[in-house]
Amino acid sequence: MAKPESWRLDAASYPVCIDFQTRFQDMDINGHLNNVAFAVLFESGRVLLNREIRPWTERPANERTMVAAVEINYLAEGNFPDPVQIATGIGRLGTSSWTIVQAMFQNGRCIATCDTVVVCRTDGQAKPLRAEMVAELEQKLAKPF
Amino acid sequence: MAKPESWRLDAASYPVCIDFQTRFQDMDINGHLNNVAFAVLFESGRVLLNREIRPWTERPANERTMVAAVEINYLAEGNFPDPVQIATGIGRLGTSSWTIVQAMFQNGRCIATCDTVVVCRTDGQAKPLRAEMVAELEQKLAKPF
Amino acid sequence: MAKPESWRLDAASYPVCIDFQTRFQDMDINGHLNNVAFAVLFESGRVLLNREIRPWTERPANERTMVAAVEINYLAEGNFPDPVQIATGIGRLGTSSWTIVQAMFQNGRCIATCDTVVVCRTDGQAKPLRAEMVAELEQKLAKPF
Amino acid sequence: MAKPESWRLDAASYPVCIDFQTRFQDMDINGHLNNVAFAVLFESGRVLLNREIRPWTERPANERTMVAAVEINYLAEGNFPDPVQIATGIGRLGTSSWTIVQAMFQNGRCIATCDTVVVCRTDGQAKPLRAEMVAELEQKLAKPF
Repeated sequence: MAKPESWRLDAASYPVCIDFQTRFQDMDINGHLNNVAFAVLFESGRVLLNREIRPWTERPANERTMVAAVEINYLAEGNFPDPVQIATGIGRLGTSSWTIVQAMFQNGRCIATCDTVVVCRTDGQAKPLRAEMVAELEQKLAKPF
Repeated sequence: MAKPESWRLDAASYPVCIDFQTRFQDMDINGHLNNVAFAVLFESGRVLLNREIRPWTERPANERTMVAAVEINYLAEGNFPDPVQIATGIGRLGTSSWTIVQAMFQNGRCIATCDTVVVCRTDGQAKPLRAEMVAELEQKLAKPF
Repeated sequence: MAKPESWRLDAASYPVCIDFQTRFQDMDINGHLNNVAFAVLFESGRVLLNREIRPWTERPANERTMVAAVEINYLAEGNFPDPVQIATGIGRLGTSSWTIVQAMFQNGRCIATCDTVVVCRTDGQAKPLRAEMVAELEQKLAKPF
Repeated sequence: MAKPESWRLDAASYPVCIDFQTRFQDMDINGHLNNVAFAVLFESGRVLLNREIRPWTERPANERTMVAAVEINYLAEGNFPDPVQIATGIGRLGTSSWTIVQAMFQNGRCIATCDTVVVCRTDGQAKPLRAEMVAELEQKLAKPF
């Protein structure tokens, strides 16, 4: 868990950036966005990216993607009720997995980054990603990849 | 817990109506918005109404408002990722309490109503509401009140 | 939304009483259990009652139960990390619906009550409850019913 | 984000292990514990460890600890309503920070690990940890540290 590289803090590095509302429930006892709210918001960002990449209903029935790991770096406190912007892109593409790289901004400042490892199982096994899927993912790469 | 009256299902009956995003986390095992997500969203609607009525920082230090009761009527299933509209207004004004009446809409349909009883304590006691507070609340009454 | 009757505040009035842990996440900005945590905990109590009444897997496929309304009365503040006890029973039995009555206790004090209306749909319609279901529900009635 | 080492999957490696209930709300649309529920449960485990290490009220007013990073590795699916066991210990101790290492078990199987970086700020700056704090943390080290 090293410090995020500088390109990670720049929204322009990511192909997709979406505004998300914060909720009263997202606040912790100090009045800041709690750690779990960051996780929920980053998940929402990933879900919307996934929907752009390929509507859920078109996936082959024997193919399943799972989140294998999530790492969040907290850089600054977030507040309610200001919205956040979540920037999302594909990072490294592996044989049967890929990473999703994200950053969260509030009032123009990067307050967190998130790295997610997604693994794809075909008939329950780690098989090479279909060429179509690779092509779709490659259209959403973050800048340095 | 009787059926909501018909005016409750009409967004035009409420002085304030705000769009809220739904989140992936709001879904239950059936893929619908879960009951708790409705509660969270209605709470967000109340918080934003409260902020319009009177910024939190201006409240006298000896005055405290608390939610005494919340009743939600579930009228139809909600989905993700469509947003919801939450309409909010003040209902009955009592001596030291008031009700907040709300309705939630998704894709033009009322999917839930919510009634909240708010009590105000001054120095820990139920004292008559300040005239200023009554005046502010009265500006946000729902139509039939 | 009237004050809960006195029998509602007595755990002995309910056939089932289960201990639930509170979580750090359940706290609001004042350090008390937030309103939504009460809703989540009452839901957990209902789910465990439902499981005792009839395992989910044995339900006829054309029969579906839905929560139509939930009313929570907040009587006192809750804290973390003390556990809560949730007492649950069946209230009024209607033709195609019933109510679930609940109370939440912490450190021996009743801090909230909850009333839930459950409706049962058979082939999408409100038909009389099956005699077997009525018999099962009647074994879990709260005291005054 | 590498695979967890084998000692991480053994509850005996951690000084503290606590049972936590799962909640109906913790389930995702597939009926498994959702990713966010893992984060909430690990947080609860950390909070209870923190409380053992040093009651919150005894901390010097100018000292503040913050979570700087959280990484969760998802190893297997979790279910409701089975409880989980969360094992927690201190990992690496740095000059002004430390890591908390955790593992989650359900029905005897390790279903996730979690690494948290905690930073300590004294008067808003990264100063060396007080000797007392180091001594307390060292009493809760996970086995390999």
